[in-house]
Amino acid sequence: MYLLIALFVIVLAMSADALVAPTTSSSATKVGLDLKPASISLKLGLPEYKSEKVDLNSLLAGKKVVILTVPGAFTPGCSKSHLPSFVNSFDAFKSKGVDSIICTATNDAHVMRFWGADQNCGDKVMMLSDDSGALVDFMGMAKQEATMKRSQRYTMVVDDGLVTGWFPGVGTDGVKQPENAWAPNVLENL
Amino acid sequence: MYLLIALFVIVLAMSADALVAPTTSSSATKVGLDLKPASISLKLGLPEYKSEKVDLNSLLAGKKVVILTVPGAFTPGCSKSHLPSFVNSFDAFKSKGVDSIICTATNDAHVMRFWGADQNCGDKVMMLSDDSGALVDFMGMAKQEATMKRSQRYTMVVDDGLVTGWFPGVGTDGVKQPENAWAPNVLENL
Repeated sequence: MYLLIALFVIVLAMSADALVAPTTSSSATKVGLDLKPASISLKLGLPEYKSEKVDLNSLLAGKKVVILTVPGAFTPGCSKSHLPSFVNSFDAFKSKGVDSIICTATNDAHVMRFWGADQNCGDKVMMLSDDSGALVDFMGMAKQEATMKRSQRYTMVVDDGLVTGWFPGVGTDGVKQPENAWAPNVLENL
Repeated sequence: MYLLIALFVIVLAMSADALVAPTTSSSATKVGLDLKPASISLKLGLPEYKSEKVDLNSLLAGKKVVILTVPGAFTPGCSKSHLPSFVNSFDAFKSKGVDSIICTATNDAHVMRFWGADQNCGDKVMMLSDDSGALVDFMGMAKQEATMKRSQRYTMVVDDGLVTGWFPGVGTDGVKQPENAWAPNVLENL
């Protein structure tokens, strides 16, 4: 009975919100967004199934960094196209002044480490786990599936913690455009 | 305002439930549970990043099957102890009349496939994804984390779809006992 009343009030609240909330798209540009105030912590998988916390701000301070974020480690689009396009373009990004490339997903740090090894990332792409959801939530890119909260696909260029390039895998019209987030397009617009 | 009222009513409802709900433990025995009516579908990862649905009932019909379920692929306890204990005991299980061994987790089918390859599962342990949460929900073993709904650790023996052996990784007192779910203990009690 209490739960029924609660549900009714929640529906009321959601309807009220829907009337006043602006329509936003997660694909809308994030250029100008400052990541620093979020103080995001990610996780790095280490040998022997260890892991350590990594402060994203410390990786971004004073540097030009490309961050590619994928829905899931070891999944087809991410493994065959998105991630390898960056591994293969490492030198081109370096020559354009990019200091480092980071790949994130909400998978466990260990899954990210093994995926990076399978993809021969070496020192070219740093594989970081967003298993707390801190980054995906801050970016407003979450999509909830049955057993996993994933990020929608995107790549962004970050200068000293400030987003200066935004390449979402889905257009503002909702149509998929994964190649927009791949390395060749990012390089062309760097 | 509406949300505040809803939260208040939910707290009220939860307090009321706490007063009347029986204390149950997900570790309590599941022996006697019939998996067949649930018609659970799992996923098998295939080469070239393909996957296919697998009807669990069809794998269990008329057979004695050991199912080990882990919180996460590539995680320390699952990779160093739980899964390898079964890979290494495959012949012992066969000699005790077990037809097949299945490992499940809520990770993607592709993650399960690569984990199985890394663990040299070969034809010894079939790696299946419960990414829909159908099995973990039916078993009442879910634990929700920030970006992932996981299963608690357990191993069960299933005869023709009926649970005949139950080996949870956490005791009914809430204390962790992962070795209870490992192969040596299951073999000893088969």
